[in-house]
Amino acid sequence: MKLLRVGPAGAERPALLDQNGTLRDLSALVDDVDGGLLGDASALDRVRAAAGAGVLPALDATGLRIGPPVGRIGKVVCIGLNYHGHAAEVGAAIPAEPVVFLKASDTVVGPDDTVLVPRGSVKTDWEVELAIVIGRTARYLETDEEALAHVAGYALAHDVSEREFQIERGGTWDKGKNCETFNPLGPWLVTADEVPDPQDLGLKLWVNGELKQDGHTSDQIFPVAEVVRYVSRFMTLYPGDVINTGTPAGVAMGQPEPKPYLRAGDVVELEIEGLGRQRQELKSA
Amino acid sequence: MKLLRVGPAGAERPALLDQNGTLRDLSALVDDVDGGLLGDASALDRVRAAAGAGVLPALDATGLRIGPPVGRIGKVVCIGLNYHGHAAEVGAAIPAEPVVFLKASDTVVGPDDTVLVPRGSVKTDWEVELAIVIGRTARYLETDEEALAHVAGYALAHDVSEREFQIERGGTWDKGKNCETFNPLGPWLVTADEVPDPQDLGLKLWVNGELKQDGHTSDQIFPVAEVVRYVSRFMTLYPGDVINTGTPAGVAMGQPEPKPYLRAGDVVELEIEGLGRQRQELKSA
Repeated sequence: MKLLRVGPAGAERPALLDQNGTLRDLSALVDDVDGGLLGDASALDRVRAAAGAGVLPALDATGLRIGPPVGRIGKVVCIGLNYHGHAAEVGAAIPAEPVVFLKASDTVVGPDDTVLVPRGSVKTDWEVELAIVIGRTARYLETDEEALAHVAGYALAHDVSEREFQIERGGTWDKGKNCETFNPLGPWLVTADEVPDPQDLGLKLWVNGELKQDGHTSDQIFPVAEVVRYVSRFMTLYPGDVINTGTPAGVAMGQPEPKPYLRAGDVVELEIEGLGRQRQELKSA
Repeated sequence: MKLLRVGPAGAERPALLDQNGTLRDLSALVDDVDGGLLGDASALDRVRAAAGAGVLPALDATGLRIGPPVGRIGKVVCIGLNYHGHAAEVGAAIPAEPVVFLKASDTVVGPDDTVLVPRGSVKTDWEVELAIVIGRTARYLETDEEALAHVAGYALAHDVSEREFQIERGGTWDKGKNCETFNPLGPWLVTADEVPDPQDLGLKLWVNGELKQDGHTSDQIFPVAEVVRYVSRFMTLYPGDVINTGTPAGVAMGQPEPKPYLRAGDVVELEIEGLGRQRQELKSA
């Protein structure tokens, strides 16, 4: 299933995109697409049955905003330097273990919402990423099979990053990863049963129509199952938590000088096979 | 006022500790002590008036669990290496700018809840900290006065840290800061009007009855106002967000070998002048 949330920011209602591309209202059936729903297999089954029975009311998509596909996200965990191509382009060694950092869940916005270039920013950069959405509480997982059984689904994420804040201001990366609007997510959460192999997905990102990233999850250093298993040793993952699994080559930081960092007025578009497409216009904060 | 939340984990109700040390039930007056209340000056005024009028029902504190004093925390921002004494003991240079990292809000537990030593941990360490609780949405603040006007109050925090996960496993510090139960908070949120000078507070921490940290917020490299102002340039702060402002000297990592890291069975107690006291027993995860 493709689950999503539509409506004004902060007042989204749950919806489903059906096989024919028709948007269906889920609000009579579930409160929200969030950790509660994702952790409740019987509720998901009811949604699946209602979708199959064709009883969900159609929604008029015209002019309807799409919000992030998960409400009340607890935490966003990010994996850094997780593609061979990206590690190479920024001159970093291949990490021996996953590089883990956090992004505040309040940075998450809808897939087509405005992205704000922070005041004082000179190095706002793009990163197309495959996001994992957790469906079951995960602690100290041991096998890849167990790890994948805790994944509710996948979504497209934009891990917007300010490189000067991230790398040149002292301390950890978090300073350049948590600016307002820095994590567009969606349009959909695609349930895991419809993503047969998360290591077989193409990812693309364009800036002002020009293709900048053209990667594939087969280039991930630590694949999805290993990421979930590894992270669960250091923190407990809860239903509705999100893991951004890193970006392929092609970011601004990896290009020759003068590096083409983002400015107000730029338009970023991104997509992952089967997970939909985003489009953000950049404005000044 | 001293605001707090009492009851079973996940089902706490709002309460107030009055001038005479009597616990008063706030649940008829407000839904919770959270960002909504902290961002609503008129609701806080109603609580203050009811407390003054002596009309709040007393609660029997016997056996009552105290939860974290803020519900639905959005994010926990942490400042690293923010005391001269602590930077010196771990051999770090004095940071030119605040070192910022995040802790997931799901690590927050009550002040006397069990703290879990993670599986595989060999370097679980303690850190007594002054926590700032935000009361108004803060973006790009410019002056110290503005910054302090966005603070709802202060609380005692324990920024539990696993040093091997934090420093020796690659990547950023976040891996050693986000284990389950790693952020006891409370017992109270003391409203800012009752903390005349946040740079004039003593902090103490004991392990198994032995005093390990005996610091003072006057030793902070970046004081509270500067921390709030600085962080608001890199991320938006919302009512109910928490900032842990760093720990003074005396952590296990700063001691001679063999460093006395925490083990299951240890008891940590900590306090800050006027902000109350915590006591945690450590158990294996």
